[in-house]
Amino acid sequence: MQLMPITDSMFLLMESREHPMHVGGLQLFTKPDGAGDDYVESIYRDLIERAEVARLFRKRPMSPVNTLGQAFWAEDTELDISYHVRRSALPTPGRIRELLELTSRWHGTLLDRHRPLWETHFVEGLSDNRFAIYTKVHHALLDGVSALRLMQNALSDDPSARDMRAPWELRPGKKRPKTGGGSLLQRVTGLAGDFAGFGPTAVRALTEAAREHSVPLPMQAPRTMFNVSIGGARRFAAQSWPIESFRRIGKATNTTVNDVVLATCSGALRDYLIEHRALPDASLTAMVPVSLRSSEAAADGGNAIGAILCDLATNEQDPARRLARIAASMSGGKKLFAGLSPLQILLLSALNVSPLGLSPIPGVADHTRPAFNLVISNVPGPKGPTYFNGARLDGVYPASICLDGQAVNITLTSNNDMLDFGITGCRNSVPHLQRMLLHLDTALSELTAAAGIS
Amino acid sequence: MQLMPITDSMFLLMESREHPMHVGGLQLFTKPDGAGDDYVESIYRDLIERAEVARLFRKRPMSPVNTLGQAFWAEDTELDISYHVRRSALPTPGRIRELLELTSRWHGTLLDRHRPLWETHFVEGLSDNRFAIYTKVHHALLDGVSALRLMQNALSDDPSARDMRAPWELRPGKKRPKTGGGSLLQRVTGLAGDFAGFGPTAVRALTEAAREHSVPLPMQAPRTMFNVSIGGARRFAAQSWPIESFRRIGKATNTTVNDVVLATCSGALRDYLIEHRALPDASLTAMVPVSLRSSEAAADGGNAIGAILCDLATNEQDPARRLARIAASMSGGKKLFAGLSPLQILLLSALNVSPLGLSPIPGVADHTRPAFNLVISNVPGPKGPTYFNGARLDGVYPASICLDGQAVNITLTSNNDMLDFGITGCRNSVPHLQRMLLHLDTALSELTAAAGIS
Repeated sequence: MQLMPITDSMFLLMESREHPMHVGGLQLFTKPDGAGDDYVESIYRDLIERAEVARLFRKRPMSPVNTLGQAFWAEDTELDISYHVRRSALPTPGRIRELLELTSRWHGTLLDRHRPLWETHFVEGLSDNRFAIYTKVHHALLDGVSALRLMQNALSDDPSARDMRAPWELRPGKKRPKTGGGSLLQRVTGLAGDFAGFGPTAVRALTEAAREHSVPLPMQAPRTMFNVSIGGARRFAAQSWPIESFRRIGKATNTTVNDVVLATCSGALRDYLIEHRALPDASLTAMVPVSLRSSEAAADGGNAIGAILCDLATNEQDPARRLARIAASMSGGKKLFAGLSPLQILLLSALNVSPLGLSPIPGVADHTRPAFNLVISNVPGPKGPTYFNGARLDGVYPASICLDGQAVNITLTSNNDMLDFGITGCRNSVPHLQRMLLHLDTALSELTAAAGIS
Repeated sequence: MQLMPITDSMFLLMESREHPMHVGGLQLFTKPDGAGDDYVESIYRDLIERAEVARLFRKRPMSPVNTLGQAFWAEDTELDISYHVRRSALPTPGRIRELLELTSRWHGTLLDRHRPLWETHFVEGLSDNRFAIYTKVHHALLDGVSALRLMQNALSDDPSARDMRAPWELRPGKKRPKTGGGSLLQRVTGLAGDFAGFGPTAVRALTEAAREHSVPLPMQAPRTMFNVSIGGARRFAAQSWPIESFRRIGKATNTTVNDVVLATCSGALRDYLIEHRALPDASLTAMVPVSLRSSEAAADGGNAIGAILCDLATNEQDPARRLARIAASMSGGKKLFAGLSPLQILLLSALNVSPLGLSPIPGVADHTRPAFNLVISNVPGPKGPTYFNGARLDGVYPASICLDGQAVNITLTSNNDMLDFGITGCRNSVPHLQRMLLHLDTALSELTAAAGIS
């Protein structure tokens, strides 16, 4: 028995049928040369038979119901490994489309609270002889970034490595870096409470500093179709684009890769909203988690992570001008943060996300202006090719959490020379989510053309 | 908007993550001669494109959360048919074992309350070129018997019939027959309340009548591993045996087919419990729903349904003596019911199942003697071969509901010349449920030998 910190239990308390609180990742692999038809099954059997499970993945809530009991973790001493690690297959014709359909279903169902809060699915039946692994982990156990990192740590850069260990066999790195801990949401919402004594004067000073740098303030984002109450079912879309495409646009326009990513997302969101006759006059605002190393934070040995509110310029038709506005907004946000202490950064970030805390109250999402329209998060991944038991990782697509008022989320990660985008949406409120992939592709082409690259 | 009767809403109120309140059915089909690889996909596409959905399957709870709001049904005017009807496939090697594994997972996840409460899964990838359809429907919509009947009504006895309608396109028969309505549990628990004024004298008279006929009384069943608090995950096992095997034993021993079914289940339960060193000294008691046509009920045009508590004689080692005791217990129960009016039958049945009403109170299942050890239910099905778009129905296996204190359920149905058994269990408390199939087979062989049939 182990006391469950409030930063863990809040994710269990916030969870309901409509708000599953797990993060997911879909990994796509190419089988090694000469792999037989039973390749995936044999990897699976080996892992199941070994049944080695790290301590973190044996933890389950002491009491599965919503009582004080869940303030404790218990260890599952009779872990049923074949419950957690499963085999599945795609129906014909076995395209990525069928894989995303299946991933959507898995991502929309709750984890069983009587057991350690994770599942891994080995998926056969892709028509191009590849296979996939979808993993979901409760946010009370690991935040999205840590989960992705763990999935990465289970891979090797050596294609000849065999008998490799699965993510659940590994001890994850420290869940909480020195500067705070947990996910951004965890840290800033937690700290918002701690800093209640920080006083309204400090808040005023900070928001005025924000105004000076023309950084959007929370609660000024327009209401959109993405900012409504959500249901429990999910849609998931995923695709990869070469990092080089973004880098070239950045070079030609003197912007960062992340600016170009945001401008691509902005173009796609704009097209999607136009298609649904739902583009608001005011520009959409994205919450963008950024890593900011201030001198003070560096001395502390950690990274300061802040939440920048970025003007997505979706009311701007011209792709080049859209990119310029986004770059200016991000740069303003970073400059603002650069002049602040890590504690001030966390406080300002807390102000940015704090209205989310109200979202579980029924109706709030439907009747108030959103703090921002969506989260767009870019998580660094491996710089070269990586392998699992000889199978090459072709892509790893993050599947994130939707909340009331936050019906869509874009999270991407770099993998070798590609950027892998995962878009998670509420099935009720975000129809035809797959169209977003087409729109991303169009937006990237438009930016390429606007940057004067052939 | 339509008022939701309490008999519907009680199943929504009773439901939790640990107690999904849906019933299911797994149908196994042989494709018609000359069917191509895309046979299942093309049937699926036809149904999806037609998107005809009967009124019952467009009903969803007005408010998906546990409030008074759920006392109303709303109609889903934008039903998302591809959410409800899905395609799936089995991983290699595509045996029945993989099919049951997948069915177990589906049966253990909650239906989405934002939508009409049903799902149908078309399953490809069976290695013998067959395919399967798994359907789940919330008990608030249809009870198990009605759901099976509806699945049956969608079939034809004509193998050349094509363009057939799916169950969700059909108008189901009356949910509630004249004598009461809803499932047995619904009817008897509902009536237990209505008859509160019937008085303790009547109750005493009835329980004394029960004693005279050596019928077990509720709350006298021993505690077993099946009578504990349950988790949300399920195991499902299914297999068919020829009706003729049971009929021959019945003829040779002067017992009914249902007596032989119960004796086979008893033998299997005994072996399973011995294997787990968990066989109690006292005999297990089964709750057996039976159809009893009394003269009064017949005049009323309906069937009286009663809940007989049957002594399963699991403490008897000899199969022949076990069968004899079971036959005597069933016959005693029926004789007792034969002398009662339909209202008295319902009252006695209510007494038999009423302690179930306490089971949602945490801890009750773990600290009290069970009303009975499990439900064994035998539902009549089609007498000849049936087809769906030319595909022959090889088996239809009912998947039922588990409750706190009722961790396992056996429901069977007749199909052409076979008896199709579906066993549903809590994954936590009933390990290696598939072994039960082997034990059923052994028990049937032992009864055959004991009856002196070669």
